[in-house]
Amino acid sequence: MYPCVVGHEIVGIAVRVGSEVKHVKVGDRVGVGAQSDSCRNRTGKCNDCSSGRENVCWREGRTDTYNGVYLNGGKSYGGHADYNRAPGHFVIKIPDQLNPAHAAPMLCGGVTTYTPLKANGCGPGKRVGVIGVGGLGHFAILWAKALGADRVVGVSRRESKRADVLKLGADDYIATEDEKDWAQTHAASLDLIICTVSSPDMPLRDYMGLLDSYGRLVQVGAPEDKLPVLHAFDFIPKGKSLSGSVIGSPNQIEEMLQLAVEKNVQPWVVERPLSDANQAFIDMENGLARYRYTLVNEKHI
Amino acid sequence: MYPCVVGHEIVGIAVRVGSEVKHVKVGDRVGVGAQSDSCRNRTGKCNDCSSGRENVCWREGRTDTYNGVYLNGGKSYGGHADYNRAPGHFVIKIPDQLNPAHAAPMLCGGVTTYTPLKANGCGPGKRVGVIGVGGLGHFAILWAKALGADRVVGVSRRESKRADVLKLGADDYIATEDEKDWAQTHAASLDLIICTVSSPDMPLRDYMGLLDSYGRLVQVGAPEDKLPVLHAFDFIPKGKSLSGSVIGSPNQIEEMLQLAVEKNVQPWVVERPLSDANQAFIDMENGLARYRYTLVNEKHI
Repeated sequence: MYPCVVGHEIVGIAVRVGSEVKHVKVGDRVGVGAQSDSCRNRTGKCNDCSSGRENVCWREGRTDTYNGVYLNGGKSYGGHADYNRAPGHFVIKIPDQLNPAHAAPMLCGGVTTYTPLKANGCGPGKRVGVIGVGGLGHFAILWAKALGADRVVGVSRRESKRADVLKLGADDYIATEDEKDWAQTHAASLDLIICTVSSPDMPLRDYMGLLDSYGRLVQVGAPEDKLPVLHAFDFIPKGKSLSGSVIGSPNQIEEMLQLAVEKNVQPWVVERPLSDANQAFIDMENGLARYRYTLVNEKHI
Repeated sequence: MYPCVVGHEIVGIAVRVGSEVKHVKVGDRVGVGAQSDSCRNRTGKCNDCSSGRENVCWREGRTDTYNGVYLNGGKSYGGHADYNRAPGHFVIKIPDQLNPAHAAPMLCGGVTTYTPLKANGCGPGKRVGVIGVGGLGHFAILWAKALGADRVVGVSRRESKRADVLKLGADDYIATEDEKDWAQTHAASLDLIICTVSSPDMPLRDYMGLLDSYGRLVQVGAPEDKLPVLHAFDFIPKGKSLSGSVIGSPNQIEEMLQLAVEKNVQPWVVERPLSDANQAFIDMENGLARYRYTLVNEKHI
């Protein structure tokens, strides 16, 4: 809906704070992710908003951080701007110890992978796979290590990414287009998989085959078309599951930022000036981002 | 593999007991379900058998109760017989309070639905759907009520089954071929669904739509062909999952039988003489079973 300002991983300093907002004061470093409002249980009937899972509330009032419309009729404008205004409930205080250029992409890309890892028991005793090592997947590897998984395995198409993935902290790497018989070799070797791939042609049945008993594959990449065909026997004999996950609630974002501080999580972020946004998009489309660009507004440095 | 003796929901009196079997003595009422052996961690490498989930162990040694081959080369023969021999680990003591004709179909049909209900938190606070009300589904309704679910909803094709389903204890019923707009009317109304339907033409996306946030659909019916097509957006926006489940471990069977005693669970079982087995199969194929036949060996009455 033009006029439109994109950008939904926003970090800055609070310059004005509403009178009913308690957790933020002027001068604090704050951020806003992909969601800037939900129904917030205004009807008294939303189990999601009343139980701290605003990210799955799709009732009237849910507003994306840009190109959305708030209940009062006002439009939401994103972060490629000098200032941003958003409802306090969805404004997160950024810990002082975090580099703001690192914190920004955590607010959507980071939490999209943190939430399903946490919800599915990533930690000691678990073998975790991350399929697709791009903006999302590189975060998934960092979180899985920070959460203490026994073993973290990156999965991508080409052997050429192996060095990066191991450097990110992964214990192993599978190159599905360069490693013959990968599906057989690594069958039943993982307990939890975060799949960031969004191609409808991905070998989803082979990915499911990487799971061991009661293993769970969580899809966070979103093919707009159908999912690849699945069979009941991909699920039944060993009790496996396929699920989906979408961003995270404000509470989950805060929890993730705390983990990033405690475990000194260092995402691979390249800072670029906001004035260079157009070129940054072109570079990203060409696969040059390793693994996130953060656009920095020169006026606020 | 002929000769073959079918039957994998067996109850009888122990007439001989191996010297290393501790939990059963001669004269006890005992039963055997669909599985009569697993690898039992003979290699020291089976996480399934070492953690009490023998039902998902598919290593060498797994043996079905009939038409299987044990590690020693002996064949397994099922329960349509005067006697049955099975490894003690998979022989379950049947509580005295249970009608043996009721206990028998619990050993496969019963536990197939009990296990996923228990594993997915069926109990107070949960709204549970059961799709397909036949031999499996009727058990799922009984267990969901016994486990204390807030609300249990039967789902089948025809309105004609409504009376039965409510009499089984369900709180509501959905007839998918007789109720217009059922998918919209009942959307997002359930937390957990056990799907016993095994048709590859079932409206699986509509079933997924019955789930509320973080809802789980567990497939226990097994279409031999592909599952109906799914979309990533059936899963992602509200964090839903699809999984599968297969029978249950000996421990889970015992737990289920205890629940049946404690909650006085009364499955709908019609007893028929074993000599009438052929006609019983024909009647079952014609949909006359409401909802299980137990074949009773006249020699042992």
